[in-house]
Amino acid sequence: MKVALFGAGRIGKVHAASIKTDPRSELVAVTDVMIEAAQALAQEHGIAVRSPEEILADPSIDAILIASSTNTHADLIEVGAKAGKAVFCEKPIDLDLKRALEIGRIAKTHDKPMMMGFNRRFDPNFAAVKAALDAGEVGKGELLAVTSYDPAPPPVSYIKVSGGLYRDMMIHDFDICAFLFGMPKMVMAHGSCLVDPEIGAAGDIDTAVVVLTYADGRIATIRNSRRAPYGYDQRVELLGSEGTLEARNEVENTVVKSTAAGTVSAKPVFFFLERYMRAYAIEWRAFVDACVEGKPVPATVQDGVNALALAEAANQSFREGRPIEVTSEMTGV
Amino acid sequence: MKVALFGAGRIGKVHAASIKTDPRSELVAVTDVMIEAAQALAQEHGIAVRSPEEILADPSIDAILIASSTNTHADLIEVGAKAGKAVFCEKPIDLDLKRALEIGRIAKTHDKPMMMGFNRRFDPNFAAVKAALDAGEVGKGELLAVTSYDPAPPPVSYIKVSGGLYRDMMIHDFDICAFLFGMPKMVMAHGSCLVDPEIGAAGDIDTAVVVLTYADGRIATIRNSRRAPYGYDQRVELLGSEGTLEARNEVENTVVKSTAAGTVSAKPVFFFLERYMRAYAIEWRAFVDACVEGKPVPATVQDGVNALALAEAANQSFREGRPIEVTSEMTGV
Amino acid sequence: MKVALFGAGRIGKVHAASIKTDPRSELVAVTDVMIEAAQALAQEHGIAVRSPEEILADPSIDAILIASSTNTHADLIEVGAKAGKAVFCEKPIDLDLKRALEIGRIAKTHDKPMMMGFNRRFDPNFAAVKAALDAGEVGKGELLAVTSYDPAPPPVSYIKVSGGLYRDMMIHDFDICAFLFGMPKMVMAHGSCLVDPEIGAAGDIDTAVVVLTYADGRIATIRNSRRAPYGYDQRVELLGSEGTLEARNEVENTVVKSTAAGTVSAKPVFFFLERYMRAYAIEWRAFVDACVEGKPVPATVQDGVNALALAEAANQSFREGRPIEVTSEMTGV
Amino acid sequence: MKVALFGAGRIGKVHAASIKTDPRSELVAVTDVMIEAAQALAQEHGIAVRSPEEILADPSIDAILIASSTNTHADLIEVGAKAGKAVFCEKPIDLDLKRALEIGRIAKTHDKPMMMGFNRRFDPNFAAVKAALDAGEVGKGELLAVTSYDPAPPPVSYIKVSGGLYRDMMIHDFDICAFLFGMPKMVMAHGSCLVDPEIGAAGDIDTAVVVLTYADGRIATIRNSRRAPYGYDQRVELLGSEGTLEARNEVENTVVKSTAAGTVSAKPVFFFLERYMRAYAIEWRAFVDACVEGKPVPATVQDGVNALALAEAANQSFREGRPIEVTSEMTGV
Repeated sequence: MKVALFGAGRIGKVHAASIKTDPRSELVAVTDVMIEAAQALAQEHGIAVRSPEEILADPSIDAILIASSTNTHADLIEVGAKAGKAVFCEKPIDLDLKRALEIGRIAKTHDKPMMMGFNRRFDPNFAAVKAALDAGEVGKGELLAVTSYDPAPPPVSYIKVSGGLYRDMMIHDFDICAFLFGMPKMVMAHGSCLVDPEIGAAGDIDTAVVVLTYADGRIATIRNSRRAPYGYDQRVELLGSEGTLEARNEVENTVVKSTAAGTVSAKPVFFFLERYMRAYAIEWRAFVDACVEGKPVPATVQDGVNALALAEAANQSFREGRPIEVTSEMTGV
Repeated sequence: MKVALFGAGRIGKVHAASIKTDPRSELVAVTDVMIEAAQALAQEHGIAVRSPEEILADPSIDAILIASSTNTHADLIEVGAKAGKAVFCEKPIDLDLKRALEIGRIAKTHDKPMMMGFNRRFDPNFAAVKAALDAGEVGKGELLAVTSYDPAPPPVSYIKVSGGLYRDMMIHDFDICAFLFGMPKMVMAHGSCLVDPEIGAAGDIDTAVVVLTYADGRIATIRNSRRAPYGYDQRVELLGSEGTLEARNEVENTVVKSTAAGTVSAKPVFFFLERYMRAYAIEWRAFVDACVEGKPVPATVQDGVNALALAEAANQSFREGRPIEVTSEMTGV
Repeated sequence: MKVALFGAGRIGKVHAASIKTDPRSELVAVTDVMIEAAQALAQEHGIAVRSPEEILADPSIDAILIASSTNTHADLIEVGAKAGKAVFCEKPIDLDLKRALEIGRIAKTHDKPMMMGFNRRFDPNFAAVKAALDAGEVGKGELLAVTSYDPAPPPVSYIKVSGGLYRDMMIHDFDICAFLFGMPKMVMAHGSCLVDPEIGAAGDIDTAVVVLTYADGRIATIRNSRRAPYGYDQRVELLGSEGTLEARNEVENTVVKSTAAGTVSAKPVFFFLERYMRAYAIEWRAFVDACVEGKPVPATVQDGVNALALAEAANQSFREGRPIEVTSEMTGV
Repeated sequence: MKVALFGAGRIGKVHAASIKTDPRSELVAVTDVMIEAAQALAQEHGIAVRSPEEILADPSIDAILIASSTNTHADLIEVGAKAGKAVFCEKPIDLDLKRALEIGRIAKTHDKPMMMGFNRRFDPNFAAVKAALDAGEVGKGELLAVTSYDPAPPPVSYIKVSGGLYRDMMIHDFDICAFLFGMPKMVMAHGSCLVDPEIGAAGDIDTAVVVLTYADGRIATIRNSRRAPYGYDQRVELLGSEGTLEARNEVENTVVKSTAAGTVSAKPVFFFLERYMRAYAIEWRAFVDACVEGKPVPATVQDGVNALALAEAANQSFREGRPIEVTSEMTGV
C-alpha cells in the first residue's frame, strides 16, 4: 500500500522510518507547511514533496498518516475520509471534545481503516500485561496504577498551546487505563504546580494524580509528573484476584556495578523515542494489517474520543474539586 | 527497666520476644482476661501472671506495654499514665476519634514516654526511605505512593468489630504518609468490595484507594486490598525533585530459576510477622531509648491521633463522595 | 538435651545464641582457655564455667559443641566421642588430612550424632537451590559456579596459622560443591596474591579459582577473593539440562533510589554473621533433630573429611600446576 | 563509501541491514556461491549480484564485507587486501592458526582498515563494562567470569565442520577476555559432552570451562554450554580491587507477574540476532569511522589471531589435560 505523510517534524520522521520497516507499505509523498522540513524528509527517503490537495486527489495513494500539529488533526481526518483514504492519525483527535465527537461520527461511516496513534498499546511490555490479563493469568482485575513521568517539562510556550496536562500528557495514560480496564464511571482529578512556577503562571499544572472508578468497583490511579531527572518513567501495575502484573521501565543497559557506595544499575531510557521506538514499528504493522488483511483496528477513533472525554472530565473535576461522572454524552456511545 | 505486658495474644507474644532482645529491659509480669493465654506466656518467659491493678500499683514496674484488644487501649493508656508508668501502646488509640483526642491531651501532660506501636516506621526499608528523603537525596518530595495489600482477608467476624478498612488496615498507611510527608490538607477516599461479598454485607469494603493532598501541592496515594495471593505486599515509592525512592518487598529467599517457562524468583514474605519481626525489635529499642536515655519518642500519641483523624476523614469522604478537609478540630493541634 | 560449649569466642557466642532458639536444647556449661571470655559468656547466659574434664565426665551433659580454635577440634571430637557425647564441631576437623581421616574412622563407630558446622548448607537460599535441584526443577545438573568473596582479608597473623586459602576459606565452597554435586574426580587449582602482598609474603594467596571435574562430565568452578569492598559476596549458580538456578546475595534493605546518577540499591549484607545468622539457627535445629528425633545428620564428619581432601588436592594442584585426582585414599571411602 | 558483500546467508543479511543504518556507507553489490541467495538479497536491497572478480576489480568499491563460509575468510581477506580494499571480515580468520598468522602478517602491511567481526565488543552492555573498567570505576581488575550458553546446539552436521567448540563457540569468549583483560599467559581447558551424545560421537564437546591465568596474577574463567533452554545466556562479571561489574542478560520484556506460584519475569532474548542486533549496527559504524574518519579499528586482525591462538591452546590443553602456555609463536607478537 502507498502512504503519504502529513507532517515532517520529529514524530513524522519516526513514522517515516516505521513505514519502511513493513515491506507491505511504501512511503510515496510527504507534505508539511514547513517546506524545508518536508524537503529534507523527502530527500532522505527518495520521495516527492506534494501538496495536501495533490495527495488527497491521487487515487494511487491508499493511506494518509497524519503527524502534523494537533490543530490540523480533525480536519485532515475529515478530508482524508472524504477522499476515501485509510487514515492513521497521531493523538489527539482534537483538543475540543465536541469536534472529536464529530470525527467519531464520521469514523463510524468510513469504510476504510481509521486508527489513532496510541503508541503505548504497542509497547511490548504494556502489550504483554494486556495479554496476561486477558488470559486470566492474574484473575479478574481489581486495582490499576499507571505511572508516567516525563524526564523534563517542555518549554512553557508549548505548555500554553498544549491543552493542559490532562489533555496533552495524561491522555496517553487515560488510554492505557481504557486499554486495560475499559471506560470508568467516575473521574477524580488532583493536580499541582511543583516543577516550574512558570507552568503555573501559564495556567497549567505539572504534577497530577487522577483516580478512575469503575461501575463494577475496580479502581485505577494515574500519576503524572513533568519531571523525573532519572529518565522517562513509564510503568503499569495491576492487582488481580490471583496476583499482580507490572510492566517496569526499560533501562539503558544491563550493567550492574557494586562498590562500597552501593549497587548501581542503569537508568530508564531517557525519553519516548528510546522507549517506544519498537512500539511505533509494531503500531504501524497493525495499521497495515488492518488495511491489507482486514484485521480489526487496535486503536480506534472511538478510543481517541474516549481518552479525550476522560481528559475533559479530569479538567472539570480539577476545576470543581469533586468527582465527575463520565456520561454517554461525553463519549458519544 | 521493668516492663509489664497487657495482652498475651499474637501481638503480645511478639512484643514479649522483642523485650528480650534489649538487655536494658526486662519483662516481669503479664496480664490478660484470657487467663490461659497469660499463664502460657508467663511460663514461657519465667514471669508472673498478675492483675492489672497489681501491675499499676507496683512502683518497681517502670513501663506497661499495651497489646490487649483495641477497645481497652484508651482506658489502659489513661490508667497507666495516672500510675506514672511509661506507656507503649499498640495502634490504634481507639476507634473513636473523640476518645483518642482526650488521650492525646493526657499524653501532653504525662512526663513519661508514651509511644504508639506504628511498627512500620521501624522497618529498615521504610526507615531507609525516610532517612534518604530527609537527607535530601532525591530533593524535595512531590508524589508519594503507598501500596499495602494483605495476603488474605481476616474472618468476617473480625471485620465487623474492626472499625472498617480505613481505621483498621489503612491506618498504618496513613501513618506512613504522615511519617514521610507530614499531615495533608484534604482526603479523598474511594473503596469497593471486590474480594469477598460477605465483607460488603458486613458494611465494609476490602479494596480502597485514598488520595491525600497537601497544602504545598504534594500528593500521596494509598492503595489497599485485603487480598494478595502472592503474599504481604508492602511498598512505598516517592518522587522527589531529583529522583525517586522505592522500598520494595522483602522476599522469601534470593533464588532465581530460569527455565523455558520463564524466570521465577521468590514471593514476598507471607505476612506481617515475617516482614516486620525486625521492625518490632527496633521499635522496642526506640522505646527503651526514650525511657532510659531520654531520646525523643519516634511515634507519639499525637501520631496516633493524626492517623485516626485521617481514617475518620476517609470514612466521611467515602460516605459523601467528596474530598474532606483535615481540620485542627480533628487532630487537636 | 543439655549442651556444653567449648570456645567462647566470636563463633562460640553465635552458637550459644543459636542453642537458645531451640526449646529442646539447653546450654548448661562453657569452657575456654581464655577464662575471661568463658566467664563473660557464662554470665550472659546464666550458666557455669567448667573445665573440659568436668564437662566430659558429667553424664547429664548430652552433647558438646566445639567452637574452639582449629587445632583443638580433632582432639575434642575424639574425647567427646569417648565420653559418649553427641558432638557438634565447627569446620575444619583438622588442618591435617591424615588426622581428619582418623577422626572419620572414629565417627563411623560412634553411636551418637556427630555433625560438622557447614553452616552454608543451612542458608535458606543455598538450601532452596539444593531442594530445587533435587526435585528436578532444572533437570540434571551440568555446570556449577560458586562465588565466595570476603569483604576484607583477615590479619596476616591469622593467615599464617590458617592453613592457607584452600583449607581455611575455600573449604566452605568445596563443601557446597559436594552438597550440590557430590565428590569430583579431579581438582585443578589456580591462585594469586592480588589483594595484599603481605599475604603473599606469608606464603599464601588471596585470590583463587578452582575447577572440579566429575566422573560423569559435570564441571564446577569456585572463585574466591579475600576482598570485596561492597560486602560479603556469596552466590551459587548452576546450569541444568532444563534451566538454571541462582542463589543471589542477601542485601541490606530493599530500597532503590533512581536519580540522574543512576539507580542505586543496597549492598550485600556485610559479613558472615549478617548473612548466615538464620543459617546458624537452622543448623542447630538440625543437630537437635538428629539427637532428639534420630533424624539423619545433614553434615557429617565424612563431609568434613571430603572438604578437607578437596582442599588438599587443591594445594597439591596449585603447587604442581596440574590437575590432581581425588583418590579413595584421600577421602577414606 | 561503497561496500560489496561476500555472502548472502543469515549473517550476510544482518550485515546488509547494518550497512543501511549508517548514511555514510552504501551497499552496492553482493556475491554468493548460492546464486539464489545472492539474488534474493540483491533484489531486497535494489543492488546488483556480481562476481568476486568484478567486485575486486571495481575501483569504485571501497570496502568488502566478508560474511561467507569460514573456509573462504582467509583467502578473501588476502585478495581483498591485494585489491586495495578496506576489509571487514566475520570471525574467525581461519580454523588453522598458521593460516591466520599469515593473514595477520598481511594485515600489518595493508594500509586500509581491516576489521574482524567480534560483535560482542559492541554490545552496549559489554561495552559499558569495558568503559567502566577502563575508567577505574572498580579499581584494578582481578577476576573475570564469562558465561556464554547457546539456547540449543546446532545440527551435528555443522558441529563436524565447525572446528570444535573452542574454535567455533568459545572464540567469542576468548575475545571478550582479551577485550577486557588482554592476553593471558596460560590456558587450562575442561570439557564434556553432556547435551547430545551425537556431538561426542562427532568428536566434539558441548559443555566446557576454560581458565585463563595472566602474568600479573589475574584469572579469567569461561563457561560454555550448547544448551540453555531459557534462551541465549550471555553475561560477563568481573571483580576489581574496588568492586564488581556485571553485564546481565537482555530480557524479552520488563513484565513481572506475582502469583501464589512465585514471581515470574521474562526470559533472556532467545538468540544472538535478538541480543546483538544493536551491536551489529554499532560495529558497522565503527568500521565506517575507521574508513572515513581514520579512527582506530576496534577489533583488529591481530585480535582475530589472538582469539584463535587461545582456542588452539585450549584444544591442546583439553587433549593433554594440562595447562598450556600462550607463546609469541602462537600469536605472532
